[in-house]
Amino acid sequence: MHGDEIAPLMARLPGWALAEGGRLERSFRFPDFVTAVAFVNRITTVAEDAGHHPDLLVRWGEVQVSVWTHSIGGLHINDFIVAARIGLVSDVEVTH
Amino acid sequence: MHGDEIAPLMARLPGWALAEGGRLERSFRFPDFVTAVAFVNRITTVAEDAGHHPDLLVRWGEVQVSVWTHSIGGLHINDFIVAARIGLVSDVEVTH
Repeated sequence: MHGDEIAPLMARLPGWALAEGGRLERSFRFPDFVTAVAFVNRITTVAEDAGHHPDLLVRWGEVQVSVWTHSIGGLHINDFIVAARIGLVSDVEVTH
Repeated sequence: MHGDEIAPLMARLPGWALAEGGRLERSFRFPDFVTAVAFVNRITTVAEDAGHHPDLLVRWGEVQVSVWTHSIGGLHINDFIVAARIGLVSDVEVTH
């Protein structure tokens, strides 16, 4: 995708940054490790549903999400859709 | 911990490496994203039980685990115990 295509899509993804190498990145904070991993599980549902999987860095109280399309080494419209969906499940309470 | 304390403990942790900055690191491979995240959930149980939480990098089919003691900026005996326990749950089938 070109810069003029990316800019309006980024504007619709508050909190996300365009990182080095053309990835969508965002850090989500949580009160502890367990709630961070609960978010990882919600991301997994989104990713499986979309057939598109982010990279995740999980630390105590934090999940850093990185979304991009490996096969093209950059961004595809799917990345923006998955990023938006991940944002939507970032603050959902988990009920196991 | 000193090098002469670390070496015999490392010998008991096959697959783990002593990484830059004095962390215990190991990469675990899985057939897909879901099985990798299932391992993250098993790690979470171990970490909560131990009160000691690793950093995790989750990619499609891979979990990179990094264990160290943040408060001392290096390795404590607890890191070796948690690393060993994580190794033990790396190949356990999940039953939800």
